[in-house]
Amino acid sequence: MPRTLTLAIAQSGPVQKADSREATLDRLCVMLRDAAQQGADVVVFTELALTTFFPRWYAEDRAEMAHWFETAMPNPNTQRLFDLARELGVGFYLGYAEQTPQGQHFNTSIIVDKTGNIIGKYRKVHLPGHADFDPERSFQHLEKRYFEPGDLGFPVWASDGFGVPANLGMCICNDRRWPETFRVMGLQSVELIMLGYNTPSQNSQAADESIELRKFHNRLTLQAGAYQNATFVAAAAKCGNEDGHHMFAESCIVAPTGELLAVTKTEEDEVILAQIDLDDTAFGKVSVFDFARHRRIEHYGLITEQTGATPPKSI
Amino acid sequence: MPRTLTLAIAQSGPVQKADSREATLDRLCVMLRDAAQQGADVVVFTELALTTFFPRWYAEDRAEMAHWFETAMPNPNTQRLFDLARELGVGFYLGYAEQTPQGQHFNTSIIVDKTGNIIGKYRKVHLPGHADFDPERSFQHLEKRYFEPGDLGFPVWASDGFGVPANLGMCICNDRRWPETFRVMGLQSVELIMLGYNTPSQNSQAADESIELRKFHNRLTLQAGAYQNATFVAAAAKCGNEDGHHMFAESCIVAPTGELLAVTKTEEDEVILAQIDLDDTAFGKVSVFDFARHRRIEHYGLITEQTGATPPKSI
Repeated sequence: MPRTLTLAIAQSGPVQKADSREATLDRLCVMLRDAAQQGADVVVFTELALTTFFPRWYAEDRAEMAHWFETAMPNPNTQRLFDLARELGVGFYLGYAEQTPQGQHFNTSIIVDKTGNIIGKYRKVHLPGHADFDPERSFQHLEKRYFEPGDLGFPVWASDGFGVPANLGMCICNDRRWPETFRVMGLQSVELIMLGYNTPSQNSQAADESIELRKFHNRLTLQAGAYQNATFVAAAAKCGNEDGHHMFAESCIVAPTGELLAVTKTEEDEVILAQIDLDDTAFGKVSVFDFARHRRIEHYGLITEQTGATPPKSI
Repeated sequence: MPRTLTLAIAQSGPVQKADSREATLDRLCVMLRDAAQQGADVVVFTELALTTFFPRWYAEDRAEMAHWFETAMPNPNTQRLFDLARELGVGFYLGYAEQTPQGQHFNTSIIVDKTGNIIGKYRKVHLPGHADFDPERSFQHLEKRYFEPGDLGFPVWASDGFGVPANLGMCICNDRRWPETFRVMGLQSVELIMLGYNTPSQNSQAADESIELRKFHNRLTLQAGAYQNATFVAAAAKCGNEDGHHMFAESCIVAPTGELLAVTKTEEDEVILAQIDLDDTAFGKVSVFDFARHRRIEHYGLITEQTGATPPKSI
């Protein structure tokens, strides 16, 4: 029996600093309903979906940023998204800023099943940017200031929470540039990886880098990750102009062949869908990317032995 | 001072089973001379450049295949390629089938400097295909029968053998589909990765897989490997119709941004060139892919702990 799912991306247009959490939640609920009416089994929202991309703003005192974080999930503001998911019978992926009871801060995402229950949590491992104010940059990217690196690894969940048995994984934004992200999940037989991203259209350290090149890098890393691990990938942008800072869109659904199945056309709130069959991940996993037959871990040691690059070993 | 190199690809058209080693060597010498006249500092030849892609032919008795292997390098047949390189002052990368004095067989490549000296050797780690005759396939791909997996890892050489100081790496064909290949060299600060490939235009296990998809996978993996490790990549095909078996072309030179700098247009012997500045690898290595700041090896353990995929750890 085919394991078909109708997979939706709910791309977010810009969320301004002044926008209320409630208004932003309204927009997500509208898209959840829209996707469900089009038959979606699962809706992928973006990274930090409830707020503006606040790591672009510097605060000497980190405590000034506390109001961007969720201290519980669900909470009185987001409960209605969970309730609506249960009512409509649709699961979702959601990114948000998490503050733990111990006061730790993470860039977090969750998978919620069709009954509105959280079945998995992920915390962003690859935080881009920097921790201190950097006067050399054309704008700030302070994820390393406001978040700790994720401490949950890259779990994969075997779940039928979206209606059919599936191996589900998550990552967030900059994680997609790292092949290690995809491979660790590939080694756990992942079939669908969901992620959100907020990616500036300019490189704060290279004014001449074109937006087209930056969009290409987005597609390249998502398509390579999908192909090299024979998995579907669903990536949802927050995009458009947030308080003068532009982020590109191009949210997409990628097949295990690396081919694009659907791409957004706007830089606004937009829902796109694709019907996928999770069994389409099988061929890659038993042929070119049959890891058991082809990987040679005896030659991969440096990948886990050393963090940074070193000079060449041979002369 | 910029570290500029004129980098050439010498793509090989088909080499038939009946073609003599001497005639094939003639063709490589013609291309070496052509590239040198256009100012090349280094010429990248293909995988198994001296012979047809013999792993498509099954032999019950492996000894029947002995004549495809080189027992020394250089040897009386190939010496004139080394001599010509020295005369012209151009380095090269060359792939060939290697038989060691102990009788081991490898799919091997070498880097030769401008004085005709071998400065590095690599043996293909990721052997595709299968070891025994497979009646289910539309054609055979017996690399796992005729070669042992490479035992030299993925070394990177710091060398000025091409005229400027450069960190040089190699891989071969199917290695390019594996992000581990690029990452292990990236962790050794590689700046230029050279490779050759013989890639069938059909998937022997999936008749409906299009040649366009297969070409896309070639570009995708080369471009992702270059971008994610901020390195140049130069990939040379053997292509066209070898005894009824078609292989695609699209040899290319890729920038550290992942962008294509040059792509071949034919399926014949063809030389393409690009002038590159090795210092263009620096920006990626100190920004998005500054491994020391961004990699999180504590979460990569599975990559070196387990070879094959296992079921998900979480439910």
